[in-house]
Amino acid sequence: MTLQDQIQQLAKDARDASRIMAQVPTTVKNHLLQQMADALVASGAALIEENARDLATGREKGLSEAMIDRLRLDEGRIRGMADGLHEVAELPDPVGEVTGMWRRPNGIQVGRMRIPLGVIGIIYESRPNVTADAAGLCLKSGNAVVLRGGSEAIHSNRAIAAILKKELAAMGLPAGALQLVSTTDRAAVTELLKQEQFIDLIIPRGGEGLIRFVSENSRIPVIKHYKGVCHTFVDADADLDMAEKICINAKVQRPGVCNAMETLLIHRDCAEAFVPRIARVLGALGVELRGCAETCRLAPAATPAQEEDWGAEYLDLILAVRVVDSLDAAISHIQEYSSLHTEVIVTRDYPNSQRFLREINSSVVMINASSRFSDGNQFGLGAEIGISTTKLHSFGPMGLEDLTTRKFIVFGDGQVRE
Amino acid sequence: MTLQDQIQQLAKDARDASRIMAQVPTTVKNHLLQQMADALVASGAALIEENARDLATGREKGLSEAMIDRLRLDEGRIRGMADGLHEVAELPDPVGEVTGMWRRPNGIQVGRMRIPLGVIGIIYESRPNVTADAAGLCLKSGNAVVLRGGSEAIHSNRAIAAILKKELAAMGLPAGALQLVSTTDRAAVTELLKQEQFIDLIIPRGGEGLIRFVSENSRIPVIKHYKGVCHTFVDADADLDMAEKICINAKVQRPGVCNAMETLLIHRDCAEAFVPRIARVLGALGVELRGCAETCRLAPAATPAQEEDWGAEYLDLILAVRVVDSLDAAISHIQEYSSLHTEVIVTRDYPNSQRFLREINSSVVMINASSRFSDGNQFGLGAEIGISTTKLHSFGPMGLEDLTTRKFIVFGDGQVRE
Repeated sequence: MTLQDQIQQLAKDARDASRIMAQVPTTVKNHLLQQMADALVASGAALIEENARDLATGREKGLSEAMIDRLRLDEGRIRGMADGLHEVAELPDPVGEVTGMWRRPNGIQVGRMRIPLGVIGIIYESRPNVTADAAGLCLKSGNAVVLRGGSEAIHSNRAIAAILKKELAAMGLPAGALQLVSTTDRAAVTELLKQEQFIDLIIPRGGEGLIRFVSENSRIPVIKHYKGVCHTFVDADADLDMAEKICINAKVQRPGVCNAMETLLIHRDCAEAFVPRIARVLGALGVELRGCAETCRLAPAATPAQEEDWGAEYLDLILAVRVVDSLDAAISHIQEYSSLHTEVIVTRDYPNSQRFLREINSSVVMINASSRFSDGNQFGLGAEIGISTTKLHSFGPMGLEDLTTRKFIVFGDGQVRE
Repeated sequence: MTLQDQIQQLAKDARDASRIMAQVPTTVKNHLLQQMADALVASGAALIEENARDLATGREKGLSEAMIDRLRLDEGRIRGMADGLHEVAELPDPVGEVTGMWRRPNGIQVGRMRIPLGVIGIIYESRPNVTADAAGLCLKSGNAVVLRGGSEAIHSNRAIAAILKKELAAMGLPAGALQLVSTTDRAAVTELLKQEQFIDLIIPRGGEGLIRFVSENSRIPVIKHYKGVCHTFVDADADLDMAEKICINAKVQRPGVCNAMETLLIHRDCAEAFVPRIARVLGALGVELRGCAETCRLAPAATPAQEEDWGAEYLDLILAVRVVDSLDAAISHIQEYSSLHTEVIVTRDYPNSQRFLREINSSVVMINASSRFSDGNQFGLGAEIGISTTKLHSFGPMGLEDLTTRKFIVFGDGQVRE
């Protein structure tokens, strides 16, 4: 079989399996996820052995220690995958929910019922735990899933997928509902992205390069986010203690993630008071500031920001800082440079809080809270399958519900159209 | 300016205008649509004159009478466009609706607020009334719109767009919120489909060729439906009077539209009674039947169906008919050949009705009603911008709400993440 035929067959098998998975009762799906969790823990030693092969290859290829660490499976991480599956098992099942039902003048009743999307393709890099996490979320929401992990984790991914598939089969469910593309040939990704007949949604997870490749080559709808350039705006009359606490948390608590703050905007009317203060405290925490002229005047430790600093996703202890003349200027700056991820205003002014809330149309808009809350778990959606900064289908952190769609259902008693 | 620069500028202008449109109060948007409606009627004579140029060119080019008729504007059709705008003005505004708000253990409140998508591109063929209809729906939902109509209607479309833009400007709203691609150069479509930086959604409306071209060449998300192959399944114990009434309505009332029935499935247990009866009555109404062997045995007037008849969208007085052994066989047939548009069961059996409802995951599933109801207006969504048979974002008939998305909103009082 050619690679093309293989991938098409795999996608078709997933589509066929998805029709069965769409009908599986919640209790059965929950039991499946629990069995999968137990099987991962029980097979821990074998998993660690397969993972060691990936680690050895990674070292030969000269992967960085950070990359090797992301790749590593140990007992704790295997337990973490299992816990994740148990958590998803406990989440409410979105499938079958009827969201609204109304009667039309002719007596037909029209409603909308939540159904699985069908087949979801996940294309991801390095971390092998995504194999179990994504499978759990897709299966719980009644979908089939096609997984394509990074070549550096191929042995780990194959071992995890084999364990999970065995549990599907043991419960009499179609093994085709969980497919791993087990070749490391890159052409397989391109082929996968052509299977619009069988796959309903592609979610790429990884670096910007992977995501651009997927979205430029896919005929299947893609939900993605390229990067998070999160802004915090400290308004003229902000509580400066609160502003300091929020800024420290948003920048320093975990700088390498997409909901960390990358740009701080400060209203001119509080700049004299706030810029030196935040520069001092962030400086002490090892943060490098890149500021506008006014920022550099008020905080001499800051280096002058270049145009490319506005819009930069540092993912590091670096912060762009700009003093702005007004709320309008802050909104304009954000609209110009935002990645549509998360924006925060710190203010005591009610009208300003409401204007910011309405006029900023990023996927998450916050008043007086740290951007680090922008996360499916923190929002109470349960486990997160990803985050979307494209507006179609989902916008912001995505949970189980985002892996479903709604069909219309109509109850009649013989009505015909006049 | 090159064509590429022109299209990019137009898309960027629409994006800039969309930020203003997103904030326009409902009353102002409603007034705008009413002014537009009145302006169309007041400019009727000029519109008819411009339309005459398109009709003349169409005749020169040898367009069919059906095409010429679709292209024609007269007083009644101009009044129809105006009525459509008035209707949309009266629909509730989805923008700003908060769909759920909940408190997290740390005290932050998380909710979701409906916002416009931003910029919507509509690519359509021949009927010039789409220019006004689509503009009305996009503007009412707080979006900017980029319109690209067919070259055969270019003078009509330019005239309509100019009238509508004038009303935007007269109310102090940005004229960039309504853009018509006024060149007939086909390369403009390809350029438009590259503006993913500025356009949030593309809706193609027209023949399957247009829709395939758009979806294969777009980097922007596309919502579409290729065709409607709607099935009606007459179950073993259906009320045959009801079944007859529904089948006649679904096939004959307006055969040229996507929600007309194209395939009729009949349970073997009622085939002896129903096949000759429905063949007689549909035959008398001029419907040609293409049947399976059993259908042809029971209704000698039917011609044998070929494999391509299952899955055919005739849009004509032709019907594929198949006798099936069971509900399962009906469901399997539909899953195999469905276009995911609309499927109907006629039955008196409660468990069968529920199985059909759950197991068929087309965008509309009906019990005991004509597929001709599958329509945004009939469902009570108000005017329809289109129908989606892709599952992402919207599935089924689409109204104003489908031109919006939801952002997360968070109210805190200084919370930071532990």
